[in-house]
Amino acid sequence: TRARASRADADAAVEAFLNTLKYDDGGLVAAIAQDVDTGAILMQGYANRDAVAYTLKHRKATFWSRSRSQLWCKGETSGNYIAIDSVHVDCDKDSLIYLGVPTGPTCHTGAHTCYYKRVDGPDGAATKASGGRHAAEEALTTLYELEATIEARRVEAKKEGVKPSWTRRLLDDPELLCKKIREEAGELCQTWEENEGKEAAANEMADVLYHSMVMLNKQGVSMTDVLGVLRKRFGTSGVDEKASRPPKKLINVSK
Amino acid sequence: TRARASRADADAAVEAFLNTLKYDDGGLVAAIAQDVDTGAILMQGYANRDAVAYTLKHRKATFWSRSRSQLWCKGETSGNYIAIDSVHVDCDKDSLIYLGVPTGPTCHTGAHTCYYKRVDGPDGAATKASGGRHAAEEALTTLYELEATIEARRVEAKKEGVKPSWTRRLLDDPELLCKKIREEAGELCQTWEENEGKEAAANEMADVLYHSMVMLNKQGVSMTDVLGVLRKRFGTSGVDEKASRPPKKLINVSK
Ligand SMILES: [Zn+2]
Ligand SMILES: [Zn+2]
Ligand SMILES: [Zn+2]
Ligand SMILES: [Zn+2]
Ligand SMILES: [Zn+2]
Ligand SMILES: [Zn+2]
Ligand SMILES: [Zn+2]
Ligand SMILES: [Zn+2]
Ligand SMILES: [Zn+2]
Repeated sequence: TRARASRADADAAVEAFLNTLKYDDGGLVAAIAQDVDTGAILMQGYANRDAVAYTLKHRKATFWSRSRSQLWCKGETSGNYIAIDSVHVDCDKDSLIYLGVPTGPTCHTGAHTCYYKRVDGPDGAATKASGGRHAAEEALTTLYELEATIEARRVEAKKEGVKPSWTRRLLDDPELLCKKIREEAGELCQTWEENEGKEAAANEMADVLYHSMVMLNKQGVSMTDVLGVLRKRFGTSGVDEKASRPPKKLINVSK
Repeated sequence: TRARASRADADAAVEAFLNTLKYDDGGLVAAIAQDVDTGAILMQGYANRDAVAYTLKHRKATFWSRSRSQLWCKGETSGNYIAIDSVHVDCDKDSLIYLGVPTGPTCHTGAHTCYYKRVDGPDGAATKASGGRHAAEEALTTLYELEATIEARRVEAKKEGVKPSWTRRLLDDPELLCKKIREEAGELCQTWEENEGKEAAANEMADVLYHSMVMLNKQGVSMTDVLGVLRKRFGTSGVDEKASRPPKKLINVSK
């Protein structure tokens, strides 16, 4: 009965929260599904009171389908759920973020986000660098833009008489790449050891990230994979950074 | 007159695009402003035809204010614009992403995003780790969750008889931290040198990232600063990865 009482408390808290939302004339708030690892906006729909309640209770992104006038737990038919990590509300309480992990492509077209078309070029479709699992005109944030640029360099055709890009040279010469990664890690440490200041630290971290990401590309690994590893180590699951502590290695380090 | 003709072509392309959008009964589509560096969703509003046109033309996130029934170029009065990097439309053409760089806090409350409240805890306000410039209940993606966890370890009080966390030990012993950063960079290289496979590469990259981010915290530098550096080097500005190529260093490397 203690469990039942606590369940009733939780239900009451959810009801109280649902009462604070500012629904529109159709009883809806906006709901934006965002990938917890990459930050990619996957889709945006609308949620009524029941859809928000269902999302909170079942930890799966759920919307109100305006076209079909019914509750729509995303993935119910396709199997491509968005497992909820957390839910956030905006300042005027008419918009939610469903932050979560998609179990497959979100879009019915098979794209992993519904926003795969860029529209602000002079011709309504300017081209951004793209590669890997990203569509050419997706809303890539800086880290993924860099990842896509590296991939574009990997697949670019060699041109007679034109020097290859620096990225391409690194991809073609992994020993040089390894030298650079070790060197840049050292330079990042030096910014502290020699007290070089914040700007130098940011610049050296950028060097470390870029060269390490070229190495990931070389091995066919995406930043999404890496962030998945970090989430499992540090995420809201309760596991904290202890998981990244390798005791045996630590002994080696102390030698 | 060639410039004028090309301007007319561009205007016609924008008009054609505006005709493809699926406006609701109020003549609106949803518009989500997202930080191009961090991926943080800054705010969500609505845009009519004029607001989208204004956004595309002036490269500043612009909405239709439903409460004031007027065009609202965000930052017009506060000075906190969102400079547009690119604009993307979703598959059913009723929702846009304004991907850009905020020049200040987006929210009228002074928060840098309007989504600063988490609502899915049993009491409607569960606590996530948080630190630095992030609010405690923001929708942090994995990289920023990690950054916030590191900051939380930095500020946590030492407890009598309780071993400090691994992160705290690294922060308190920067020489150990530097050793680890150099070691992890070497281990990432080894995954290629010893052909250890993708999973090992993702794990070692996670190690490199985590330890490097502890070093950033040690020096008061945020990942946002680092991504700003990378955007300036690799962004859509046309500058490509050549900017990250240090010719003098390269000579040293070849020694
Ligand atoms: Zn709102
Ligand atoms: Zn879609
Ligand atoms: Zn993508
Ligand atoms: Zn460097
Ligand atoms: Zn849509
Ligand atoms: Zn706000
Ligand atoms: Zn934040
Ligand atoms: Zn190690
Ligand atoms: Zn390692």
